[in-house]
Amino acid sequence: MRLAELAAALSLPLEGDGSVSLDGLASLEDAGPAELAFVTGAKYQAAFASSRAGAFLLPPGFERLGRPCLRSPAAYADFARAIDLFHPRPAQAKGVHPSAVVAPDAWLGQDVSIGACAVIGAGARIGARVRIHPHVTVYPGVEIGEDAEVHSGAQLREGVRIGKRVLINNGAVIGAPGFGFTARADGVRVRIPHVCPVEIGDDSEIGANTTIDASHPGHPRRGHAQVRTRIGVGVKIDNGVQIAHGCEIGDHSTLCAQVGLAGSTVVGRFVYMAGKAASAGHVTIGDFSLVGAMAATASDLPPGSQVLGAPAVERKLFGRIVAAQKRLPELLRRVRRIEKRLGVDEADAGD
Amino acid sequence: MRLAELAAALSLPLEGDGSVSLDGLASLEDAGPAELAFVTGAKYQAAFASSRAGAFLLPPGFERLGRPCLRSPAAYADFARAIDLFHPRPAQAKGVHPSAVVAPDAWLGQDVSIGACAVIGAGARIGARVRIHPHVTVYPGVEIGEDAEVHSGAQLREGVRIGKRVLINNGAVIGAPGFGFTARADGVRVRIPHVCPVEIGDDSEIGANTTIDASHPGHPRRGHAQVRTRIGVGVKIDNGVQIAHGCEIGDHSTLCAQVGLAGSTVVGRFVYMAGKAASAGHVTIGDFSLVGAMAATASDLPPGSQVLGAPAVERKLFGRIVAAQKRLPELLRRVRRIEKRLGVDEADAGD
Amino acid sequence: MRLAELAAALSLPLEGDGSVSLDGLASLEDAGPAELAFVTGAKYQAAFASSRAGAFLLPPGFERLGRPCLRSPAAYADFARAIDLFHPRPAQAKGVHPSAVVAPDAWLGQDVSIGACAVIGAGARIGARVRIHPHVTVYPGVEIGEDAEVHSGAQLREGVRIGKRVLINNGAVIGAPGFGFTARADGVRVRIPHVCPVEIGDDSEIGANTTIDASHPGHPRRGHAQVRTRIGVGVKIDNGVQIAHGCEIGDHSTLCAQVGLAGSTVVGRFVYMAGKAASAGHVTIGDFSLVGAMAATASDLPPGSQVLGAPAVERKLFGRIVAAQKRLPELLRRVRRIEKRLGVDEADAGD
Repeated sequence: MRLAELAAALSLPLEGDGSVSLDGLASLEDAGPAELAFVTGAKYQAAFASSRAGAFLLPPGFERLGRPCLRSPAAYADFARAIDLFHPRPAQAKGVHPSAVVAPDAWLGQDVSIGACAVIGAGARIGARVRIHPHVTVYPGVEIGEDAEVHSGAQLREGVRIGKRVLINNGAVIGAPGFGFTARADGVRVRIPHVCPVEIGDDSEIGANTTIDASHPGHPRRGHAQVRTRIGVGVKIDNGVQIAHGCEIGDHSTLCAQVGLAGSTVVGRFVYMAGKAASAGHVTIGDFSLVGAMAATASDLPPGSQVLGAPAVERKLFGRIVAAQKRLPELLRRVRRIEKRLGVDEADAGD
Repeated sequence: MRLAELAAALSLPLEGDGSVSLDGLASLEDAGPAELAFVTGAKYQAAFASSRAGAFLLPPGFERLGRPCLRSPAAYADFARAIDLFHPRPAQAKGVHPSAVVAPDAWLGQDVSIGACAVIGAGARIGARVRIHPHVTVYPGVEIGEDAEVHSGAQLREGVRIGKRVLINNGAVIGAPGFGFTARADGVRVRIPHVCPVEIGDDSEIGANTTIDASHPGHPRRGHAQVRTRIGVGVKIDNGVQIAHGCEIGDHSTLCAQVGLAGSTVVGRFVYMAGKAASAGHVTIGDFSLVGAMAATASDLPPGSQVLGAPAVERKLFGRIVAAQKRLPELLRRVRRIEKRLGVDEADAGD
Repeated sequence: MRLAELAAALSLPLEGDGSVSLDGLASLEDAGPAELAFVTGAKYQAAFASSRAGAFLLPPGFERLGRPCLRSPAAYADFARAIDLFHPRPAQAKGVHPSAVVAPDAWLGQDVSIGACAVIGAGARIGARVRIHPHVTVYPGVEIGEDAEVHSGAQLREGVRIGKRVLINNGAVIGAPGFGFTARADGVRVRIPHVCPVEIGDDSEIGANTTIDASHPGHPRRGHAQVRTRIGVGVKIDNGVQIAHGCEIGDHSTLCAQVGLAGSTVVGRFVYMAGKAASAGHVTIGDFSLVGAMAATASDLPPGSQVLGAPAVERKLFGRIVAAQKRLPELLRRVRRIEKRLGVDEADAGD
């Protein structure tokens, strides 16, 4: 593809030689003369200067040093669009694969694609242009919004509601019953039927092998939380995450891999939880908070919190604790020396 | 449903107006005039007094304030039964779905339900009334007890034995080979064949995407542990848990989400392991122990232990350590001040 | 089986009575007179002396005390071979099960076995003798090397390349898109298409429900890392592990259960990461390093490192910190006592 053609396809202004021929994309460091690279800001000036790429996506005002480029206010996002042009997705055949099993009363929108061996339960509603890959089980009563995509091996339990343009990755389990039991009068532990289905908002993504549990009508809720486990709009959830019954994840929040939320956690909007972070149950994590990797929140966090550690403390305090911990063996010796000097017994000073 | 009908259906004594019409259930805080709520003890007195629920499940002796109620010695458990009445489960069709693949020599009990595209291997034995959902693979030689239920996407490996009334959630993998290798004489690492199948006791539950590994005959065992990985009776295991080869989980224990047990861990009876807790291999966790969230047990715990932290320490000590840690940066400064006062060099005092 | 027959089958030298009849295998402690046990070294002398096993696999030079044995320089590995003899694997039928769905242009090698309801996408290449179990989805363009085995419920995404003799356990998801987004000019978060497929080297193993993500062409890479997520040769990965986009795992490394690697982590050769260990993104872990259970590496580790803790510190320092932490509450009291003695205010000494 010539750079000028790419400029037209992406509707971006071209500067310099539009006849450069491109056959792929790469990072600044790796790109060769037939590849497109991108620059998002001033800190890449040196890498840009030494890059061998044939053409660039550059932010406005970034000096192009005479090289051919497309101007973009969001160069990484336009690079993403360019990837789609160079690596078009293999189209999934429209219609229902003959090996799929679709309940007679399931409702299928226009141009849906139901893959081999997929199973669509009674009363399910599959929106227009939804793509269901092989080996997906859609339990009875599930609703899937338009243009959503559900990858192979994902399991959507009874009544789950999936928004528009949602991406569900392989092996994700949405709406299995929450982990809630109670004792009968004879002491035997019985399951609370978790009959309140999970809801996932538009434009959200659920990672591979992630689990999001259903809740039940007697489920305790707090503040603005719904009884239903609810994932907001534009939420991005990575692989291997566990979201327990009755949790609520605010719009545009991000949960990285292997995060675990205990029941009724309320995560605000634009929250970022790094890998393996966790929350105790019935905790509220305020909007725009940042929960670091492996951090464990055990109590409510005000909006804009930044925490680390288990149990989590304010980020800067955590840094100081970690630094001080390394000096802890030394500190013990220093205190012993002082005690010696003062003639104080090193035995415990009692409460 | 009228309250009087519900009283009859649940066989619970009615007090007050039995003509109240109910159309659902909710928590004390959320319930409206057509909903049933429940109270488990005295601490809910205020919430009960201000509840708008139309009827209640109340423990004996709890003052009903003139409101219609059913008396229950286990109100939460009876609430669970009421959920079943208001939200009857869609019946799964009995018999074998035409798209299922059942080995000719598999044995199917009475009234089993085998879902679409399920695969039942050679010599498998499926007890009466077992429900197998779509996309379950039952490998050869598996035995499933009466009234068990296996949800879509679960995988039961060769020879696994599942007890009666067991619930296996979606995507769980039972009996994949344990993570055991050894070096050949030429240094190449080879797999030990893990041919000892997993056993799961009656009334246990396995969470979505949980993995429980098979063991092998040379597997080291300790104390009363079996060579086989064995889950006891009434054990409740949440989502995303990993149980390695040769572990034994005692009856009625609880493993919350994302717990990880290394090989040959012996978990006693009525043990509770909170989310993301872990155990090193060959460790015994005594009966009735409580292992806190994210705690890591590295050595044997006597019965009734309560531990937290990684590595785990006694719960109260952990609380004191956490409190002291926050004062660690301050402590460093205080010791430095003392040293100054005494004219002692702050350099490390040596060993 | 007579011991002499076993000696012949394993091509190992027999010492003592070859007529001993064996019907199984067990550990030294558990084995009875009709069972074979094994000894790997001198530390098992006492257990050997008291073992009731009928025959043994013994290393050269280990005193057999008059008991029948086979001599083996790698007794555990030969025990593994013996397991295979006593527990022959049920053969999977060769050929394509009638319920499998194989794209017309997929290429199948000699003697492949494609299980019930497996789905093989367009252009896939399945090497000779590969065994694909039921409910596996092979997306278009996947390549699987000779003698590999893929267990039920595993999902292989577009273009993934699997080496020879690789074992993929149940529910593993290879090649789902990495967790990479960027903001458009209007602030909306969009996905970067992760079009660079995962590669897995020969003789590697992937655990049940493990996830390994694909990367994209603009993905930052460091040092010798490839843009592609790449698992080396002979790598053993346990259950529930998460490997993010752009990671590289060196040959013969071991990742235990629930390990999590953030994007672009470079793990060297012969590295061992224990259970639940983690790495921040763009970190290099040197060859032969040992990362302890639950440890979190936040910066590069030189070859041969041994670390523990979160954030990870050198192993011995971690031990000293853990020991000192338990004395932290006591230390606070001792410092307070010293301050009292000196007449110093216990208030914070300031920065």
